[in-house]
Amino acid sequence: MRIVELNENTKNDILNNLLKRSPSNYGKFEDAVAEILLNVKVKKDEAVFSYTKQFDKANINADNVLVTKEEIAAAYKEVDEELVAVIRKALVNIKDYHEKQKQYSWFDSKPDGTILGQKVTALERVGVYVPGGKAAYPSSVLMNVMPAKVAGVDEIIMCTPCDSEGKVYPTTLVAANEAGVDKIFKVGGAQAIAAMAYGTQSIPKVDKIVGPGNIFVALAKKAVFGYVSIDSVAGPSEILVIADESANPRFVAADLLSQAEHDEMASAILITTSKEVAQKVSKEVDGFVAELSRKEIIQKSLDNYGYILLANTLDEAIAVANEIASEHLEIVTKNPFDTMTKIRNAGAIFLGEYSSEPLGDYFAGPNHVLPTNGTAKFFSALSVDDFIKKSSIISYSKEALENVHLDIEKFATAEHLTAHANSIKVRFE
Amino acid sequence: MRIVELNENTKNDILNNLLKRSPSNYGKFEDAVAEILLNVKVKKDEAVFSYTKQFDKANINADNVLVTKEEIAAAYKEVDEELVAVIRKALVNIKDYHEKQKQYSWFDSKPDGTILGQKVTALERVGVYVPGGKAAYPSSVLMNVMPAKVAGVDEIIMCTPCDSEGKVYPTTLVAANEAGVDKIFKVGGAQAIAAMAYGTQSIPKVDKIVGPGNIFVALAKKAVFGYVSIDSVAGPSEILVIADESANPRFVAADLLSQAEHDEMASAILITTSKEVAQKVSKEVDGFVAELSRKEIIQKSLDNYGYILLANTLDEAIAVANEIASEHLEIVTKNPFDTMTKIRNAGAIFLGEYSSEPLGDYFAGPNHVLPTNGTAKFFSALSVDDFIKKSSIISYSKEALENVHLDIEKFATAEHLTAHANSIKVRFE
Repeated sequence: MRIVELNENTKNDILNNLLKRSPSNYGKFEDAVAEILLNVKVKKDEAVFSYTKQFDKANINADNVLVTKEEIAAAYKEVDEELVAVIRKALVNIKDYHEKQKQYSWFDSKPDGTILGQKVTALERVGVYVPGGKAAYPSSVLMNVMPAKVAGVDEIIMCTPCDSEGKVYPTTLVAANEAGVDKIFKVGGAQAIAAMAYGTQSIPKVDKIVGPGNIFVALAKKAVFGYVSIDSVAGPSEILVIADESANPRFVAADLLSQAEHDEMASAILITTSKEVAQKVSKEVDGFVAELSRKEIIQKSLDNYGYILLANTLDEAIAVANEIASEHLEIVTKNPFDTMTKIRNAGAIFLGEYSSEPLGDYFAGPNHVLPTNGTAKFFSALSVDDFIKKSSIISYSKEALENVHLDIEKFATAEHLTAHANSIKVRFE
Repeated sequence: MRIVELNENTKNDILNNLLKRSPSNYGKFEDAVAEILLNVKVKKDEAVFSYTKQFDKANINADNVLVTKEEIAAAYKEVDEELVAVIRKALVNIKDYHEKQKQYSWFDSKPDGTILGQKVTALERVGVYVPGGKAAYPSSVLMNVMPAKVAGVDEIIMCTPCDSEGKVYPTTLVAANEAGVDKIFKVGGAQAIAAMAYGTQSIPKVDKIVGPGNIFVALAKKAVFGYVSIDSVAGPSEILVIADESANPRFVAADLLSQAEHDEMASAILITTSKEVAQKVSKEVDGFVAELSRKEIIQKSLDNYGYILLANTLDEAIAVANEIASEHLEIVTKNPFDTMTKIRNAGAIFLGEYSSEPLGDYFAGPNHVLPTNGTAKFFSALSVDDFIKKSSIISYSKEALENVHLDIEKFATAEHLTAHANSIKVRFE
């Protein structure tokens, strides 16, 4: 793995290289997606089933689009019991963590009859999209469903493509059932997003659509945004490790590769103050790559977006980490909590040599749906916050309004909004 | 004002009519905006100043683009002192309310060495867009700046167009200065959005852009979304009043008109269980319209999107209010807090006959930037939440990871992600 000395020039080159991974021109698919959306909006079920026939080669209709209890029971027989047990353990941790994110309505009152507050309400219905077949990671199902569940969403529906026999990937069904999904529909692609955004005879309209998908799904979500809410569009995976001379090079190397294996666009970066650690990590990486099953993807990802950066000081390392704003940040220094206080931008922060990134992907509890591509500067992990909204509460007594009515009339008049001023004035005429 | 009996048919007609106000096809401006964005991205200041010359007829350059202290001092001399005093009073209330929205970092630990948490960090730099001239409402400046200020954003910059003499509307300068804006740049339109998104020699890149603007500004914000964060695109104003027989028809009529005066697309709806109230409000509306300065806008808005709806029961009125999900909702019933418990969807809820909507626009403290066009089903008012982000914190000891390492390896292997499994395995080999 290449080792680069960090300076203003190399830093800027790397930042520019990483930004190449931004979603590029998707123009050529936009028209196709727009047509699917319009068709589903107008013809509803008929269009959904027709596209399912066309794209998934499956005969789906109003009678078999909804996954039955029997199909879910059958799925359990196909999934490794030990995996089900692990899913259940993970769910306990995911639920526990997200419970702590819950926000509550509040109000504040004054003796003059003023009450101000904020009412927190869960969204009513949420749709989770899950890609088909092996692209459906059960951990992703848990991470997308659980925050909505904890937020108190009334109904969580799922759309996922079936195979030509009308069968859904069994691990998806088991994960969805364990996480508490209410209804699962055998529909995938842009047509699934359209169905959840507009509603059809079979598939109800939702308030928000979350979950990963291919380019058609991503474009469809972008197109319906505003009509319903969506989660942010996820980019390629990223890991950034800050390590000093105390770091275990073998652990660091293994963790870098855990993200590099995701896809060729994934980025794995080590920033270290130790030349020795840099060299040892590079060697360990080469050793691991030879043994790992996804070695071709890993090698391409490392060639494209993998770097070992040599920093002069820990502060310099931290400054660059904040500029990159990585999805996952591991801090493997003598005092990781000390280092953490200086971190401004990162999706999830893993502290110390036993906090390996995959611990967060599967098990610890925090959400693994995280901001990528520098967006950790302004976005957060998927959370309970994504499934609630807040209404302001304003209640003034006559006395409270009387004390300020001239001020409000003054302000409204200054903005030339005379009907605004009038609405206050009539109460004291 | 028209009175309509509420039933399933009239309800659906009205819901469909209201949705017509969604932003329609902006295609014809998209290319022009894309060109401006690209030019500013590449040529930076040079392009910004050239567009400012072209669109605002102003000679702006690197030496005069930043509003000076002297210009701010001069603006104070042009603004009514009483208005400044009212702005200061309003700011105290706005700050107080938003302080209560602050969220804090938290962590939770277990004796086995597990630490999980969530770190709250303010965005580093935020840009507020303010339209030019009289379209710049000083109240809007306060409402867009204050949540960022309270969140602890390091630097708040503002972009707003100047006139051909290079002068910015004085009330805008005063409001910005009172709210605590750090730097004000004399740049408007899509070129201002581009400058804040990409950064130029004079105007720094920001993490998030907020504030209203014309169609070019809205399209530019939409285009740079993802590269930076943006607030949601505001639609036309809305008020919905739920009233029973106890309501004062004169107050209700005046409040309906306070929103109808905003523009011809604004919507003012009363839902009442009392035929008498319906008739009296209709009459009061007619009386007021004749006297008000913006009567032409008001009349068009009422003809387009104004309704008095007669409901059979209060529960029916509430159900329709939840479907409409109005930006502003006034509850003028015998027990408004009782009614409020059943409200699921509304941007801001005003309770009782002295909680007139303009009280919230200017003075009470809650933000007046609110979700419109039914999006209160999933969006919230602009708040401190918009100017923070959260990073997950994960720290496991060797003991804590050892207890679960086989589970994680199992899960990763089930997803065929062998490098994920390996990163856990190497720690216990």
